[in-house]
Amino acid sequence: MQVLVTGGGGFLGGRLARELLRRGCLTDAAGKTVEISRITLLDINFPERKEQALTYVQGDLTDARLLEEIVGEETAAVFHLASVVSGGAEADFELGMRVNLDGTRALMDACRKRARTPRFVFSSSVAAFGHGFPPVVDDRVVALPLNSYGAQKVCCEYLINDYSRRGFLDGRALRLPTIVVRPGKPNLAKSSYASGIIREPLNGVAARCPVSRDTGIWILSPGKVVDALIHACELPAAAWGVNRVLNLPGTTVTAGEAVDALARIAGPAVAGLVEWQPDADIQAFIDSLPVRFRTERAESLGFVADAGIESIIRDYIADQAIRL
Amino acid sequence: MQVLVTGGGGFLGGRLARELLRRGCLTDAAGKTVEISRITLLDINFPERKEQALTYVQGDLTDARLLEEIVGEETAAVFHLASVVSGGAEADFELGMRVNLDGTRALMDACRKRARTPRFVFSSSVAAFGHGFPPVVDDRVVALPLNSYGAQKVCCEYLINDYSRRGFLDGRALRLPTIVVRPGKPNLAKSSYASGIIREPLNGVAARCPVSRDTGIWILSPGKVVDALIHACELPAAAWGVNRVLNLPGTTVTAGEAVDALARIAGPAVAGLVEWQPDADIQAFIDSLPVRFRTERAESLGFVADAGIESIIRDYIADQAIRL
Repeated sequence: MQVLVTGGGGFLGGRLARELLRRGCLTDAAGKTVEISRITLLDINFPERKEQALTYVQGDLTDARLLEEIVGEETAAVFHLASVVSGGAEADFELGMRVNLDGTRALMDACRKRARTPRFVFSSSVAAFGHGFPPVVDDRVVALPLNSYGAQKVCCEYLINDYSRRGFLDGRALRLPTIVVRPGKPNLAKSSYASGIIREPLNGVAARCPVSRDTGIWILSPGKVVDALIHACELPAAAWGVNRVLNLPGTTVTAGEAVDALARIAGPAVAGLVEWQPDADIQAFIDSLPVRFRTERAESLGFVADAGIESIIRDYIADQAIRL
Repeated sequence: MQVLVTGGGGFLGGRLARELLRRGCLTDAAGKTVEISRITLLDINFPERKEQALTYVQGDLTDARLLEEIVGEETAAVFHLASVVSGGAEADFELGMRVNLDGTRALMDACRKRARTPRFVFSSSVAAFGHGFPPVVDDRVVALPLNSYGAQKVCCEYLINDYSRRGFLDGRALRLPTIVVRPGKPNLAKSSYASGIIREPLNGVAARCPVSRDTGIWILSPGKVVDALIHACELPAAAWGVNRVLNLPGTTVTAGEAVDALARIAGPAVAGLVEWQPDADIQAFIDSLPVRFRTERAESLGFVADAGIESIIRDYIADQAIRL
């Protein structure tokens, strides 16, 4: 089988691709373990370092002709991770609509034209929630986003359900917690600080925390997110049923707890590199997101969270081979 | 102020336009009663009989250039009723997407380009609900449609919330019950029978009922729908808050109850014109819709239902000047 990963130039897409390479196979629709013959990554940019075993396609998600080329008859799984992130979609409404909504639709339409029905794994977001949610969000809470990114993600979820119902594709949409710790540089996501306050100090660099110490956030490590994406793909369609959308398990942690855990693991000098500099805009965005979830459906389907913030930090240190 | 009604060639759009003409004014964003200087109706087709006081524009909802022409700087209210109905959007997926989703978006984008922020009243549908709803649907139930029409309507709801939040327009989306009694001919809506079993017998014509006698449906009369659309438009933005979507009040009635009420009002010979001819496809579609709602939010905002099926039938007889 062939696999397509959009956003393959990003950190998550790259990590997913390497994990798929490592596994070498995926469970297909018939429940059989099938060898992956090709992994194609689509993105507008790629990092310099490339893997020989991967196929890189530089291009735009809104280029329908290109999508029809790279979604082939042998494409059995599409991981659609590409998107304009929360801050980006808020700053440039039209760009967000074009990439996050129209681009997703173009990709789904490319899948729809294939004789076989590809599995379609979509990275949605807890930014789907913004207004009127209870202190603990369970699987029955209505998504009412307070940002364009979330609104676009929810629209895609509804289209994925409908495309799946019609047999155009076999969709699975995961509302991802904030991914912590992201390696590399800060990005435009308003939750970017949540990785920054761990990553930068571990690199010996000062990090600005724009939210208060007691500001909670719902997080999942990159390793667990990649596992969840692959698990979502491998679950049989019947396990999903009509509703192809779920909230992933995660961990609730405040900025203060994260920095305290960092101090315990890497020492107070490292943790002391975090500077508390409130930013009202980011604080308001983060305050609009749910902090606690009850993810019964995801857990019953076998999705799992991290053990806690300490294990998340230790995994990052191990992944990045950081010497303390 | 100027008003635009899409789907203005349809029965509901026409009725709304005549009611707006009759009233002659609307409450504006400042809470003032303002005279309506022009009512423009957009549709792909219009009935022969036209009102001199109305402006008719024949054209397609997906024609962005036309939309920019007819949404003028003086347009203070847009009633967006045009859509490909449930059966149509299921039969022709691309047409449904193009009109129901892209067309709505094009209309919203035309509003967005105006300096003033038009009120934007959208006819959504109870077809938003299909999977996993409880016996009584309240304001906290997640919409999970089981048809493309419903999925497209829900996507529009999310976009209306986001466009409203961003100040691009001042949106209000009403999930309409099935409208009973629709005058005229049957249409492609799978719920078309619900009007047919009352309308056809009153015209002395046999009517086929494709669902069982005990099949319930959630209905609202055309008069109450028009009142609701205008009320939705006139409510201040603050009354709506962040969530611009609500389920309208209605009446639960089974096909058997409707025909029994018809017999009481028009006699058993008229009611005897209903033929019970099951259609598995229509039965399945109707069974997928909720029958009972608790519409607290709508009621607290002043939306009202009919007194019951008898008053709905009597209103129809009076509207159409039918002699029994």
